[in-house]
Amino acid sequence: MEMEQPVINIGIMGVGNIGTGVARILLTERELLASRSGIRFNLKTVVDTDWERERGIDFTGVKIGTDVAEIINDPEIDIVIETIGGYEPAFTYVMQALASGKHIITANKALLATRGRELFSQARAHGVDILFEASVGGGIPVIMGLREGLVANRILGLYGIVNGTSNYILSRMHQDNMEFDEALREAQAKGFAEADPTLDINGVDAAHKLAILASLASGGLVDFKLIPVEGITGVTSLDINYAKSFGYVIKLLAICRFTGGKADLRVHPTLIPQEHLLAAVNNELNAVFITGDLVGNTMFYGPGAGQNPTASAVVSDIVDMARNLLARPRTMAGGEGFSGFSLNPEKDIPLLPLDEVTNRFYLRLYTLDQPGILAKISGVLGANKISISSVVQLETHGEKDFVPIVLLTHEAPEHALNKALTELREFAFIRPNILRLRLFHA
Amino acid sequence: MEMEQPVINIGIMGVGNIGTGVARILLTERELLASRSGIRFNLKTVVDTDWERERGIDFTGVKIGTDVAEIINDPEIDIVIETIGGYEPAFTYVMQALASGKHIITANKALLATRGRELFSQARAHGVDILFEASVGGGIPVIMGLREGLVANRILGLYGIVNGTSNYILSRMHQDNMEFDEALREAQAKGFAEADPTLDINGVDAAHKLAILASLASGGLVDFKLIPVEGITGVTSLDINYAKSFGYVIKLLAICRFTGGKADLRVHPTLIPQEHLLAAVNNELNAVFITGDLVGNTMFYGPGAGQNPTASAVVSDIVDMARNLLARPRTMAGGEGFSGFSLNPEKDIPLLPLDEVTNRFYLRLYTLDQPGILAKISGVLGANKISISSVVQLETHGEKDFVPIVLLTHEAPEHALNKALTELREFAFIRPNILRLRLFHA
Repeated sequence: MEMEQPVINIGIMGVGNIGTGVARILLTERELLASRSGIRFNLKTVVDTDWERERGIDFTGVKIGTDVAEIINDPEIDIVIETIGGYEPAFTYVMQALASGKHIITANKALLATRGRELFSQARAHGVDILFEASVGGGIPVIMGLREGLVANRILGLYGIVNGTSNYILSRMHQDNMEFDEALREAQAKGFAEADPTLDINGVDAAHKLAILASLASGGLVDFKLIPVEGITGVTSLDINYAKSFGYVIKLLAICRFTGGKADLRVHPTLIPQEHLLAAVNNELNAVFITGDLVGNTMFYGPGAGQNPTASAVVSDIVDMARNLLARPRTMAGGEGFSGFSLNPEKDIPLLPLDEVTNRFYLRLYTLDQPGILAKISGVLGANKISISSVVQLETHGEKDFVPIVLLTHEAPEHALNKALTELREFAFIRPNILRLRLFHA
Repeated sequence: MEMEQPVINIGIMGVGNIGTGVARILLTERELLASRSGIRFNLKTVVDTDWERERGIDFTGVKIGTDVAEIINDPEIDIVIETIGGYEPAFTYVMQALASGKHIITANKALLATRGRELFSQARAHGVDILFEASVGGGIPVIMGLREGLVANRILGLYGIVNGTSNYILSRMHQDNMEFDEALREAQAKGFAEADPTLDINGVDAAHKLAILASLASGGLVDFKLIPVEGITGVTSLDINYAKSFGYVIKLLAICRFTGGKADLRVHPTLIPQEHLLAAVNNELNAVFITGDLVGNTMFYGPGAGQNPTASAVVSDIVDMARNLLARPRTMAGGEGFSGFSLNPEKDIPLLPLDEVTNRFYLRLYTLDQPGILAKISGVLGANKISISSVVQLETHGEKDFVPIVLLTHEAPEHALNKALTELREFAFIRPNILRLRLFHA
């Protein structure tokens, strides 16, 4: 205990919101981290283009620079934190740092999801690690839980509420009967949504995170561009209330299921039974529900964003990385494999085409209030071998002569439902803007 | 990648339900674990007193013995799994194994909670580790989540549903209006309760797990014997329904809060607001809700028992341990400190006496149906500076002339409530068997 502890030198590229949080923890909790890890973490260099802004940190003893070369070319630095964000110059800098033998820790899910193959191939080529706990679920140790905690398991399914903005909006709509726009404005006012919330509400951010989780769970690399994505913008308070009346809560869900060697990956608004634990994950909070062949069902819950939670996750990666680093000379394990589940850039994961997926569906149509219409609708569905499990036709909601009809179907293949929808849209008495949602199934 | 991988030799003491599960994973998932960890795990020796029983495992290549010395004295064995259970001979064997330089992995919460000081002092003295993921929350990687995932956090509070038997009974009482005995019989029939459920329903098992979690969270060692414990045997369906009418769900909660350098530790049935995520943790499942200064609120959920979930946790410890072991020569960190939160046998954690704790209370009294009684009751409470937040007096439930009255109080110190209860019991019109429960507060 009294003996000398190994020292790990750290550089931070990009001292913005998250980078500042990481720096503060490394500087103010030095002793705590040393006592808990047996390792001394020395923040040696921080690099950013803007040093005008006050960050409220005493950087005494830390080298402050404006050129990432001061980190990338420093042979003393073992671990490099990328908290620049975005695609460039972050990608170029990380590739350079990997090439010069630095281990990388990043929270940059967009970068990992879109350039993962190049990044992890580069890491392998140079025998270094990339860790990314903070890239999914903010402060929730879900990647560690998956990689290390469930290391003995084959992952059967993974269901994530991983976008705080969408979850906040849907929660307020569900709890307080808000309309989408009102809930979005409130989310922005409270800092749970950005000025431009596009990537959050259209599901792309959730798909970035799904690509990362699915790659880990499959031990390969998932091509983000192939993931079918639907956002929450089409969901109205009317749908929330219909779902409620059926006993469901609507959540934006990132889904990963493995069937017959293929991965069924999707991001879309999903009707979750109100008694399921995921239905109780509200407001800006995140959760990932993971089913393993040995462990069964587990769930990891917590804050999906924020300076301190995200920095907490980055620092846990630093400690974890340092252990690998100190162990490395004694093992032959290359790169990220050592931490448990490995993300293999050379192994493509074949995706199950959405058309072949079977789901239960929620359909909301606006039709003229005429007799015999339900018969025609169920006729079309029946002709496509889709059977209806429940129907509700409420009062018109100021829709003039068009009234909403909502159907829940039994299990049916996506291609059959798409065909039925095309046929239904041809009816003059049905408005073409039919909303199709999907029901949760494990 | 193609280079030779380090080999870790493992011995299992006690091949019962859990030990068999661990052996099966090590033997059938050799390649999976090697590919994920970069380490080859070799199950070298298994020891048990009974080899008549069929375990459904092909032990080819594994040394089968009846004397733990075959493991403890084997210089090739690095990691010893203790899955004997109970106090003796498990304690003696583990102490011997530690003395001979073996690293220990155990699921034995009773042993850790009651003999932790001796075990961890022995581990320190011999520079080895004890890991125990499976001792709390079965397959849930909550200890890893706490030690490593939240390594940068100071833990503010920890709230665990960690006894599956109690949670199953209370869930069935809540969901289906069952009486305690009926729910217990069902739990036993379904294998969620043992023939003798005493240690589960009286809260002792939950207290064992709390002692372990609180020791980790405090970085010291908590004396299990000092933890105030109340079980669920006093809770009736009447109380479940009263709680429901107030908007609460009753759960057996293991509580750890840190206030003013002291630990407020308790196990008791607790009224949890129905909108809190812990209230949605039902049946035999477990969850630990952890509040950290940086991360905020997180929750880890999953199966708290069972062969495969528990074995899954033990194997995750094996992989984690192997990393420490391979790293050890490069670091000066002794023992368990290396994994993050350390459990320090030399550091006592002072407990906040229950008398000094402030809580909101649920009180259920049976009184004669006479006028002015509520005035007398509130008079006694008021005289002890306890104010009432709500009262319900329902119809008598076949209690002859005694009717149940239920009160919820505002925050009050335990000592004040105890004094009031003593005074209330002196009234002839009140049955002495007053039930006192506590409300959840973070």
